[in-house]
Amino acid sequence: MAIPKSMRAVQLRAYDGKPESIAVVEMPVPRPGPGEVLVRVLASPINPSDLMFIRGLYGFKKPLPAIPGFEGSGTVVEAGTGMMPRFLKGRHVACAAVDPNVTGGMWAEYVVVPAQLCIPLRKDVDLEQGAALLINPMTAWGLMHEARRGRHRAVVQTAAASALGRMIVRLGKRFSIPVINVVRRDEQVELLRRLGAEYVLNSSEPEFDKRLRDLCHQLGASIGFDAVAGEMSAIVLRAQPRGSDLLVYGALSVQPSHADPASLIFEGKRLEGFYLTAWLRSKNLLAQLVLARQVQELLRSDLKTEFQAKLPLQEAPRALQQYAANMTAGKVLLMP
Amino acid sequence: MAIPKSMRAVQLRAYDGKPESIAVVEMPVPRPGPGEVLVRVLASPINPSDLMFIRGLYGFKKPLPAIPGFEGSGTVVEAGTGMMPRFLKGRHVACAAVDPNVTGGMWAEYVVVPAQLCIPLRKDVDLEQGAALLINPMTAWGLMHEARRGRHRAVVQTAAASALGRMIVRLGKRFSIPVINVVRRDEQVELLRRLGAEYVLNSSEPEFDKRLRDLCHQLGASIGFDAVAGEMSAIVLRAQPRGSDLLVYGALSVQPSHADPASLIFEGKRLEGFYLTAWLRSKNLLAQLVLARQVQELLRSDLKTEFQAKLPLQEAPRALQQYAANMTAGKVLLMP
Repeated sequence: MAIPKSMRAVQLRAYDGKPESIAVVEMPVPRPGPGEVLVRVLASPINPSDLMFIRGLYGFKKPLPAIPGFEGSGTVVEAGTGMMPRFLKGRHVACAAVDPNVTGGMWAEYVVVPAQLCIPLRKDVDLEQGAALLINPMTAWGLMHEARRGRHRAVVQTAAASALGRMIVRLGKRFSIPVINVVRRDEQVELLRRLGAEYVLNSSEPEFDKRLRDLCHQLGASIGFDAVAGEMSAIVLRAQPRGSDLLVYGALSVQPSHADPASLIFEGKRLEGFYLTAWLRSKNLLAQLVLARQVQELLRSDLKTEFQAKLPLQEAPRALQQYAANMTAGKVLLMP
Repeated sequence: MAIPKSMRAVQLRAYDGKPESIAVVEMPVPRPGPGEVLVRVLASPINPSDLMFIRGLYGFKKPLPAIPGFEGSGTVVEAGTGMMPRFLKGRHVACAAVDPNVTGGMWAEYVVVPAQLCIPLRKDVDLEQGAALLINPMTAWGLMHEARRGRHRAVVQTAAASALGRMIVRLGKRFSIPVINVVRRDEQVELLRRLGAEYVLNSSEPEFDKRLRDLCHQLGASIGFDAVAGEMSAIVLRAQPRGSDLLVYGALSVQPSHADPASLIFEGKRLEGFYLTAWLRSKNLLAQLVLARQVQELLRSDLKTEFQAKLPLQEAPRALQQYAANMTAGKVLLMP
């Protein structure tokens, strides 16, 4: 299939979150450089991180006008120089554009991405599930991979009722690693209990700090996953046993992470980040293929994504409103 | 020399910083358990961390009534069971009680400490210099050891005009590792310049953040030492190059350390602590002896401590007032 000269894409004109700052425009199809591939996009979800990015609240900005869309699925239609691009040519892939150095975005008919940020999709994988493979399933897998690699006896996580948090709960059951779940509301406690979560704490309840500390010590939750940041980081770090790590992977509070000097100094605890893009880049092709197989095998079960709607690219502004209005109903998928 | 039944010691009765909460009392001489030694104390300095401890602002508290004094020098007069205690018997040592599990303190005629927290002193080392060996010289050495071990091209430090900060400056020159010094006042800039410090930034000046970032990137300051915590941690972490570590070893701001999630996630930076006690405990006897030799060789030059006064133990309350009133004039030494 010939590659056209121009394409449709969503264009972000200001980081202010206003509807009029987003439009669907016609622009030239980009060309892949060394180590890059050109992907014809088939589906791309709207994630909370996309909403943060559009409002200028994400951890980085791309030069304006920018094309949003941090992940999606599609077909590699052109390869730049290099072994990985050649290997990917013609394949279905899931790919990520969550990087300040990746200028393109997935809410377009075509996108150029580094081959290292593409995961080849198996033939039996649904391209719509594949579109949401990276940001939630792969991050959940990557975080649990770190927990298993470090032989941590248990995990503590914040924002546990999110789509990603629920995947962590299911992976915890699969790998028999107890997961201590922190949420903010009673409905979320219920939701997680229905999923079969054993340890769920509501951070707005009295005695929360003490109960969290008791559980973390009792189960040995020496690794934590934090998507909230702000004071929540300090609370979790304080609750964890001596020598623990807390991996920050989001900042829903839009605040800096806090850490008590006493936790760092006297208890040898550490605050770090988890960044899927860097984690994937650190793997070689073989390791990526193994990862891709492992995660794709679970896309119909533990790592399944729920969609509330599928809309064409030109309806992106409406799709954004629909998703922002009710995020817990499931992702909204854009179909370029 | 026979060990008496009772001794004089400084007793802390409340963590309120009031003069009447501190008194010199008579109490039984403690006895060493397994792995511990009994030290007849010859000299013990007052450090900023002692003042914080007395005011209840330090990272941990000991059960009251407590004996303050985090470090000092003396003679090992009795050994508990174990190889290290036997090895230390009869020797001059520098020792530390900076640990919530060490119940005693150095502002007493006798103290029981774990043998692992004792450094044997060479015969030619002045026992007064030896009394201040651990908290400043050994911490400065330990921090620079981490910088060299990690092959960091340069170091950035806060509270750079402190006694410990000045030792870091001198060790930086000795090991040819550039040190970027952050201070708060112009006099401190002058003081460090006179010491020969090349890079000194005043954090209260305009453009400080940008200048710090430029210097950290230009010199490659991928390790930082922070004694301030609070927002300063986030500022330094933001200024450091990708993949940097910031080691918090103090909290002069009495605030939690902050860290931007973007620094942690997208730039792979880490916030950790440095705790001399844990660092020493992690070394075996041989490594401790090597360390002790290295640091003691520099006690007359790079790692020399300045004293403004030497007072007997019974004058501890006055000594505390004198030191707190003018900390930059040098340490005050208590002589039991």
